[in-house]
Amino acid sequence: MQLETVDAGTFRGATHPEWANMVGPFGGITAAVLLRAVESHPDRIGDPLALTVNFAAPIADGEFDISLRAARTNRSNQHWMLELRQGEEVKTTATALFGLHRDTWADDETHPPNAAAPEDVAAGSFIDAIVWAKRYDMRFTAGPVPLSAVEPSESSTTTLWVRDAAGRRLDFAALASLSDVFFPRVFLRRGRFVNAGTISLTTYFHADQGEIDALGGDFLLGSAHANRFSRGYFDQSAHLWSRAGRLLASTHQLVYFKD
Amino acid sequence: MQLETVDAGTFRGATHPEWANMVGPFGGITAAVLLRAVESHPDRIGDPLALTVNFAAPIADGEFDISLRAARTNRSNQHWMLELRQGEEVKTTATALFGLHRDTWADDETHPPNAAAPEDVAAGSFIDAIVWAKRYDMRFTAGPVPLSAVEPSESSTTTLWVRDAAGRRLDFAALASLSDVFFPRVFLRRGRFVNAGTISLTTYFHADQGEIDALGGDFLLGSAHANRFSRGYFDQSAHLWSRAGRLLASTHQLVYFKD
Repeated sequence: MQLETVDAGTFRGATHPEWANMVGPFGGITAAVLLRAVESHPDRIGDPLALTVNFAAPIADGEFDISLRAARTNRSNQHWMLELRQGEEVKTTATALFGLHRDTWADDETHPPNAAAPEDVAAGSFIDAIVWAKRYDMRFTAGPVPLSAVEPSESSTTTLWVRDAAGRRLDFAALASLSDVFFPRVFLRRGRFVNAGTISLTTYFHADQGEIDALGGDFLLGSAHANRFSRGYFDQSAHLWSRAGRLLASTHQLVYFKD
Repeated sequence: MQLETVDAGTFRGATHPEWANMVGPFGGITAAVLLRAVESHPDRIGDPLALTVNFAAPIADGEFDISLRAARTNRSNQHWMLELRQGEEVKTTATALFGLHRDTWADDETHPPNAAAPEDVAAGSFIDAIVWAKRYDMRFTAGPVPLSAVEPSESSTTTLWVRDAAGRRLDFAALASLSDVFFPRVFLRRGRFVNAGTISLTTYFHADQGEIDALGGDFLLGSAHANRFSRGYFDQSAHLWSRAGRLLASTHQLVYFKD
């Protein structure tokens, strides 16, 4: 996640083997580093509100450049456009919306599913080849990873408690990364691993800086489901709540699959 | 929706008074025209899969230029970046993902809510000042527009049948426009109109060209709800189904509000 300033509109970073996925780095860490690039820019105003990341091609191991610019700065919000390149090749595109918070009427309308306390749930796992998954302490209460082939499920829902395995405190970049922590929903529906990958990821951040700071490194509850699988693609919607039941982020993605 | 080619990467269009909103044009028609710009580009491959539109500033009445480029073209998909400008001012940014469909395992997991047939539901309306709403035949089965102040609802859900009022056949651009047809969810929760506007809109297109063509100009069933209202912003998730219950699009947005 370390970024070096190249010029006023370019940061340089590098992949880290601890965050490796099957091909290239974990999508969540790419989302996190793009968000961090905006956070690091001297012109940035406000907190992250929305982030869309388009995974155009796998990022190769090594250095990458992130170019970014504020396409528009208003009084209370700011619209960013970003590209992640390796050499001349665009690997990822993104847009980010940052903005100021102000006090308004407020309400949580979508509540967390019932789940046993994380202390009462056994730690789950991915297969060893998914290196990034070791960065998280994951405790599945519904729809765990089908580590060996199982009966296809009628539901694509996964619910899990998740926190940083090293006890790092939550921040916006970590929340962006967690928005991609759910394995492809098609695995549950087919009862086995299937060739699949996220191609577009959008996250809405409901929590502000103070709310995130107050959470420390505690578990979040995440729940994800798919809506339709059709002709090579499916969508996933997920939510991440604090242990106290506050909705911190809503996140959606489109995934390709071959099956 | 008519676009004139300025150069290889620029189309010119103009606002139309029939699609006016309170300030500037209806966000849905802006999403539609951006999608149409990609569809009109000679380099485009495949069908729309995902579209994210960021409403950076109100579009003034008159001409606008849309600049677009394929940031990456793969064998089966293509990532576009777009900007809509008036003069030197960026008014809207967007990313679009297009791609090829192929036959795979398929399933609809999210089903439409119960609703009486559209022929058995009275036509609903917005207030007169919302000119674009007259372009649609809308029949609310839950959560209609609070035309006069009512008791705040505990639910932000609206469900409605909707079709083009002039009987135009559905296409991808029309589906993009319909993804923004839901009025701000905060109206229901507060029981009245509130200053609010969409700032980022993401739509996933589940239907392919053949499925859309088969629908003609028939009613779609749409249902929208919010997840959390907090410190000036809320998110909305919505789905659009065919009368036969096939999920055509999943769509999500972040909305600012003052209340």
